[in-house]
Amino acid sequence: MGRHRSGAKKDPVIVIVEPYGGSTRMHSPSLPHVYFDDASVTRGDGVFETLLIRGGRPVNVERHVRRFARSAELLDLPEVVEETWLKATLEAARAFGDDQDGSCSWTLSRGRAATGNATAWIVVRPLPDSVYEQREKGVRVMLAERGYELPGKKNRKKFPWLAVGAKSLNYAAAMSVVRYAHQEGFDDVIYVQGETVLEGATSTVVVTRGNKLRTPLGLDSIMEGTTQALLFEFAQAQGLSVKAKELSVEDLRAADGVWLVSAARTAVKVTRLGQEKLPKNKDAVDVAALLDRAIAAQVGA
Amino acid sequence: MGRHRSGAKKDPVIVIVEPYGGSTRMHSPSLPHVYFDDASVTRGDGVFETLLIRGGRPVNVERHVRRFARSAELLDLPEVVEETWLKATLEAARAFGDDQDGSCSWTLSRGRAATGNATAWIVVRPLPDSVYEQREKGVRVMLAERGYELPGKKNRKKFPWLAVGAKSLNYAAAMSVVRYAHQEGFDDVIYVQGETVLEGATSTVVVTRGNKLRTPLGLDSIMEGTTQALLFEFAQAQGLSVKAKELSVEDLRAADGVWLVSAARTAVKVTRLGQEKLPKNKDAVDVAALLDRAIAAQVGA
Repeated sequence: MGRHRSGAKKDPVIVIVEPYGGSTRMHSPSLPHVYFDDASVTRGDGVFETLLIRGGRPVNVERHVRRFARSAELLDLPEVVEETWLKATLEAARAFGDDQDGSCSWTLSRGRAATGNATAWIVVRPLPDSVYEQREKGVRVMLAERGYELPGKKNRKKFPWLAVGAKSLNYAAAMSVVRYAHQEGFDDVIYVQGETVLEGATSTVVVTRGNKLRTPLGLDSIMEGTTQALLFEFAQAQGLSVKAKELSVEDLRAADGVWLVSAARTAVKVTRLGQEKLPKNKDAVDVAALLDRAIAAQVGA
Repeated sequence: MGRHRSGAKKDPVIVIVEPYGGSTRMHSPSLPHVYFDDASVTRGDGVFETLLIRGGRPVNVERHVRRFARSAELLDLPEVVEETWLKATLEAARAFGDDQDGSCSWTLSRGRAATGNATAWIVVRPLPDSVYEQREKGVRVMLAERGYELPGKKNRKKFPWLAVGAKSLNYAAAMSVVRYAHQEGFDDVIYVQGETVLEGATSTVVVTRGNKLRTPLGLDSIMEGTTQALLFEFAQAQGLSVKAKELSVEDLRAADGVWLVSAARTAVKVTRLGQEKLPKNKDAVDVAALLDRAIAAQVGA
């Protein structure tokens, strides 16, 4: 229910959030709400999360709110008031409706220079057509080096201003690498470091081999995956073996199935890795179906 | 004229620009104009420039527009239509008035997801009080490593998606390092790589020794300085020696004067480098006065 494409294009729902806790209000998507001097727009200075809305309910909210709070802390933003975000998210999800999946984004910005106050809002919108296509047909993936290296865990404290690990609005590189991949005939990107697999541009890598699910070990430069965590928790409860371990490009080639897992798109299968076709129907575990069940267990949809 | 602090706090002036060339329109600063789905706000996906407005006229426009156009090209944004930006800038500067300095920012964003069209605007606002204070009293500077390394010129082509050298809206790290410096009792930051001097967080380093002006050699990770270029061109015409060369932290300590040069703040003197006080009245060349003359030669103010 809701996870399939709907004919009707719905309007987005916007809820403005009082970042220090307190009231929320609906805002018309046909009117702008961000001011010229908001740090989100002048500097990309803020944090975000993207959640799935299914059956009119937000999915995996606790993990998202924890990561959101940690991102805000790393960037020295006002403390995330969980109740306010949860309340506003439920309100937005309800207004969006239960007939189709929605992508819900949370934004917490350092705010307006004029006021010195943080700004915050939630947007729920329909998924783009490309997401439904990728869920159905899978994705062709380009392997890419990041091109830079951030300090490892031991060195991070020497560079607190980098706020490594925060999901910040400085996200143009992730968009840029996917744009580049499109030009080269691919749909998405998996970052590697030499032969070591890191993560997708905006997703977590999961591979299957028999009844085992594996994800790259949380190296320093990998964003902790909220959806992968939900998937693994559910899979383990079903008796599957789940583990984070170092994965090489060769491990991807040898896997039964390679998947990219993220909140709104859920799980999409990798059909091509660079110039190489991956096996189609080899896997014993359908990760997309498994994740759908994990989601259903949460939202009853 | 105009370069000194004015008692009156003026309203900002906003001009919305048609990014593909064409019309411009004034927008009230008391109303928001950026939509929830604009790439500038969702991803920091866009480019910017900051210019000085003095005597009601934009300063050093040609260099800014060239860098802006190159940034846009690196990020695969629509081509910058120079006439449109120049016309809109003159319009905004005139509306701002000639009684005080203004900071003028150009923004070109990848634009709204809903329309697929780029968005663009200009804002002119009064300088914050801190800028006038720093012009007068100088700045205490913390030395900091960036914490990451971008690919050098030879390797850049391997990572086109990093768009190294573009002045993008992904600027939170520069804000974050200055925030950190404030907490530590400093006003600003000079980035170093080991003992090699790179640049200020949002400015170019210039040192004086006798009648010589020096700036760090344009290493890969240094943003080309438009204001430093204006300064050096003018200084050379006055018979001073100007050169870009590799500078060490020791060279800063041994200099007659160390300055941070940028568009809106112009030139501010470094009074303290880490724990070390720098000499006060040693320099033969007053870089701030020299830059003011270079600016005056441009705008007749």
